[in-house]
Amino acid sequence: MNKKRTKINPERSKLTVEFQPFGARIDVPSGTCLLDACRIARVPLNAACGGKGTCGNCVVKVIQGHAAIKPSVFLPENLREQGFVLACQTKIESDLTVQLPEFEELSLKIGSDMKILRDHKENLIADFTLSPLVEKLFLTLPPSTLDAKYSDLKILENEIKKAMTIDTVHCEYSVLKKLARNIRENEGRVEVILFNEGPSRTILDVVPHSSHKKLLGIACDIGTTTVVLQVIDLETGNILGTASSYNQQIRCGEDIISRINYAQKPERLQELNKAILSTINNLLDNAIKASRGAVSDIYFVSLAGNTTMIHLLLGLDPRYIREEPYVPTMNRVPILRARDLCLHTNAEARIHCAPSVGSYVGGDILAGLLCTPLVSPDEKISVFVDIGTNGELVLGNKEWLMSCACSAGPAFEGGGIRCGMPAATGAIDKLKIGEDGAVEYTVIGGAKPKGLCGSGLIDLLAELFIHGFVDRHGKLNTEKAGDRIVKKEAGEGFLVEKSARTFWGKDLFITENDIANLIRTKAAVFSACALLLKHAGLSFDRIESFYIAGGFGQNLDIENAVRIGLFPDLERTKFTYMGNTSLLGAHLILLSENNVERVNELEKMMTYLELNTEPGYFNEYTAALFLPHTNKGLFPSVERWLIR
Amino acid sequence: MNKKRTKINPERSKLTVEFQPFGARIDVPSGTCLLDACRIARVPLNAACGGKGTCGNCVVKVIQGHAAIKPSVFLPENLREQGFVLACQTKIESDLTVQLPEFEELSLKIGSDMKILRDHKENLIADFTLSPLVEKLFLTLPPSTLDAKYSDLKILENEIKKAMTIDTVHCEYSVLKKLARNIRENEGRVEVILFNEGPSRTILDVVPHSSHKKLLGIACDIGTTTVVLQVIDLETGNILGTASSYNQQIRCGEDIISRINYAQKPERLQELNKAILSTINNLLDNAIKASRGAVSDIYFVSLAGNTTMIHLLLGLDPRYIREEPYVPTMNRVPILRARDLCLHTNAEARIHCAPSVGSYVGGDILAGLLCTPLVSPDEKISVFVDIGTNGELVLGNKEWLMSCACSAGPAFEGGGIRCGMPAATGAIDKLKIGEDGAVEYTVIGGAKPKGLCGSGLIDLLAELFIHGFVDRHGKLNTEKAGDRIVKKEAGEGFLVEKSARTFWGKDLFITENDIANLIRTKAAVFSACALLLKHAGLSFDRIESFYIAGGFGQNLDIENAVRIGLFPDLERTKFTYMGNTSLLGAHLILLSENNVERVNELEKMMTYLELNTEPGYFNEYTAALFLPHTNKGLFPSVERWLIR
Repeated sequence: MNKKRTKINPERSKLTVEFQPFGARIDVPSGTCLLDACRIARVPLNAACGGKGTCGNCVVKVIQGHAAIKPSVFLPENLREQGFVLACQTKIESDLTVQLPEFEELSLKIGSDMKILRDHKENLIADFTLSPLVEKLFLTLPPSTLDAKYSDLKILENEIKKAMTIDTVHCEYSVLKKLARNIRENEGRVEVILFNEGPSRTILDVVPHSSHKKLLGIACDIGTTTVVLQVIDLETGNILGTASSYNQQIRCGEDIISRINYAQKPERLQELNKAILSTINNLLDNAIKASRGAVSDIYFVSLAGNTTMIHLLLGLDPRYIREEPYVPTMNRVPILRARDLCLHTNAEARIHCAPSVGSYVGGDILAGLLCTPLVSPDEKISVFVDIGTNGELVLGNKEWLMSCACSAGPAFEGGGIRCGMPAATGAIDKLKIGEDGAVEYTVIGGAKPKGLCGSGLIDLLAELFIHGFVDRHGKLNTEKAGDRIVKKEAGEGFLVEKSARTFWGKDLFITENDIANLIRTKAAVFSACALLLKHAGLSFDRIESFYIAGGFGQNLDIENAVRIGLFPDLERTKFTYMGNTSLLGAHLILLSENNVERVNELEKMMTYLELNTEPGYFNEYTAALFLPHTNKGLFPSVERWLIR
Repeated sequence: MNKKRTKINPERSKLTVEFQPFGARIDVPSGTCLLDACRIARVPLNAACGGKGTCGNCVVKVIQGHAAIKPSVFLPENLREQGFVLACQTKIESDLTVQLPEFEELSLKIGSDMKILRDHKENLIADFTLSPLVEKLFLTLPPSTLDAKYSDLKILENEIKKAMTIDTVHCEYSVLKKLARNIRENEGRVEVILFNEGPSRTILDVVPHSSHKKLLGIACDIGTTTVVLQVIDLETGNILGTASSYNQQIRCGEDIISRINYAQKPERLQELNKAILSTINNLLDNAIKASRGAVSDIYFVSLAGNTTMIHLLLGLDPRYIREEPYVPTMNRVPILRARDLCLHTNAEARIHCAPSVGSYVGGDILAGLLCTPLVSPDEKISVFVDIGTNGELVLGNKEWLMSCACSAGPAFEGGGIRCGMPAATGAIDKLKIGEDGAVEYTVIGGAKPKGLCGSGLIDLLAELFIHGFVDRHGKLNTEKAGDRIVKKEAGEGFLVEKSARTFWGKDLFITENDIANLIRTKAAVFSACALLLKHAGLSFDRIESFYIAGGFGQNLDIENAVRIGLFPDLERTKFTYMGNTSLLGAHLILLSENNVERVNELEKMMTYLELNTEPGYFNEYTAALFLPHTNKGLFPSVERWLIR
């Protein structure tokens, strides 16, 4: 009793928590919740339920130190013994070293994606000529004399007007500050960076000619789960570097709706804002280092993201996105300055956000459409579907475009699935189950598997279904699967690999719970597609082309995707998997001012179907919660295969 | 010896200096120069020589504590005994309380000046209708519905376009952040603040209609010696408050050239920049408090200042202003944002700087021309002269304008003259010497005199000259002046008042040194005027009107100004004293967008004569270093009076 009454020196009650592999260290008072500590330290951690202890996602491993944990059904005894804890159910009681799920370098083949696009550019509305909104001009300014005395700015403006044959030139304040010195350093020979504003130009920078300044741009896809960016040389169009990571906002909730809910308090909105800015700035720092450039050489940033991500990036209250009538603050974001957002670029860099159609069809989709032949002259009716944490669909042709969105969940990006992971090094991206039940697979990067990415999960579920190891409801047939079934405290699971290197241990397996998550996701996408067609008064057989975007991984097997009922049962040749079209679209917008105009035109011609208020959506969705579907007639090829 | 080796605790060697009447307190290491301490504390102190100990201006009084002072010829023994020290020659050796020359509330009659202008508006090119570049709009925004779903920004933009019949609306990023909340707070009823950019408008703010937001503007004259500003209600045109003070940059040098020299090192440029920003922000705080407004209600700031002051305000290197061919960074400053300068206004407030003609004829002159009939249709050839720390002159009519500048020095604003002070409470502004040598005078505010402002100094010098107490060379005739002569360590002086309340003591007197300063100033102005006319091929008698601006005080006696040779010997009815035309002009620019255009037109039509490189200037100047002038024929009326 006496012990308890000992006064604690408040200074000494501060405890240090170190997070691996990030190396972040913070001091917190004794008794702080470990999930809160993660938030304070700004390390990414998936906590889908927002810290209520009901999702079991925020597992971390305590490597050193002591923590008070509450027992949880989500944490099996054997994992607990190894030091795993649920961060939201853990109080810090001593200095701790905590291991977070490892940061994965996403496997990017963006350069080659862009090459494929260029090869097919005649079918696309995008412009592939290099004419970005920022440009560099070499000028030699005549000196002022006593007889012909003009101010430095006047001389500069006159030379720009002559060179560009324009009437109006604006000048940034920061340029004024260095103008006098920089134009005199090399006898009037300067490099001028201009931003194109239609009939006028704004001077973003003036440097002496000898300074060999690069002109760099950034294309960035801001996903709910992952963020990817590229550094591009705007004088050559070459990709100099890429970087990708989880969106640090994951620690505040898994999907868009939980982020919006989390943002209800101003300080939490600010937290989300800082998390995405910090994610992008970390990537900028890494990518620019890899490309041997300087952040001050970056003058243009092209962003594509869903409406909620853009709101959170700008620090805008997203609440009205999820309240009827679901209105965003804006669809077209004004051109912003990097200075306003504190991006790690030149302070005068201009930021373009791809416009959105509405609260749930964002700039990622419109940017993505630049990469598809959906509105090309020779195209008949097509579907474009982008499956990220949300799923968005576009139906139409060059005359009309109709879109809708569904809450797919991040299952195909590896979220919410214990064995899931993004399409990164260590991910199983292709999988086959043999007659004997043995599993064969390929791993990105070739080493031991750490988990399955979207394409691997689709293969796994399809193979389980085809072999009868899983029934139409997604239940495991444990008798049939025999010794591939492992029993875990989290439930029974189908063993994929015994000697894997997962965060959880060596066994890589999928549970009924995981399968249910996958089925919910595919059901959301398929039912949205069905309803969009119904709304347009069209049947599935009217679809001529079906373009697929998302982070599945390069080896998406269309056959298996149809078998599980994710995509409709069309001729397989109609499907094209396009990878990360959001990033590709942001890249195209960066390369040419014409693409800025075209993406705005797409915004104007697109209508939006609100599924939340669409009658029949719930019925469509529940009908799709079977493998491949309740209505077997919709998947004749799959059914024929099963009967055989 | 041992004592000296005692280690001093670095913490304890910090000494505290308190500055009265500002109340500023700073800690400095023992041994710090008191002038440096003034700079660190950002309190204004005149140090014309920049701290070399050669001007004797930086006198302060040590009220409490001990300081090590070097003897100086500038500091008479009796003053030293009273605690007066030269700040630049003083080391701080204990905690100190220091009294600075008292801050004077300038005697402003700006409101009545503006009334006089309005009464004569038919002769001026300025527009007096209230149509400022910022405007407030009351709107009721229709709600978005599921069927007609537009983003918040789209709805707002549409309503603005309808109301203003314009095609293009831009929106500030900061507005986006509050848009969703503010338009919903009062059911779509909002007040919108717009900035007029010709064919387009930029949304600076959106607030709920009930918030009773004012729309305020600031007009500000940034002088080398004094800074004056007004708060103006842009919905009524009423002046709500005024404030004025010394320019805090005084501590870094008295005139433009010494400021430019001081700014040669980047950290000193930054110091000058901070000093003027701090001066303006202090005035803003005071004026806005007096006018019961809020700084966030200020959306537009109209500044007028000479070219160097504007460069220093913007933090631009002014060095090329004084290097041949004397080129400023810019004549027309782009519209700036208050955020960029950290002004104490709404962060989105726009800043307009009146354009300058060249390095030495600044925006103060062009703004001032808006207040004169110089370019009115019925005007013949006129002269406009603005005497501040620099003197600027404009000659011309509605067909042509020619300008030049001279280094007058701040004598007529009370600078560099021991008994001088600005036209503020306590200043003698009118003075007469009787037959018996007795001095009669009036004091601004009515109490005991503290010094003489410009008009008082002109009267004093003219009266001394007329009575023969001072000869043509400015030498005191001590015999004739008799017992009005006092002997001081600073030299002999003519006693104006025995029981004054000057910073130095009770005796208010003028020395030969002071008179020499006044003569140099008047010679600079007169010779510039003579040379400008010569350059235009005109004689004095071609001048139809002579407009005078400057901080002389309301009671400028033209007769006396001609008697000392400051102005040419024209018919007295041709002269008009107009007060602070720089401030009046800034005010006019604030009130109407048309005046923004007109001041830009003035910039285009004005040519600039560089006196530095003009042959004959030195001869003209030295010829004018007599009372009234070497060439007696130029001042027939004065000479006739002297002969009589």
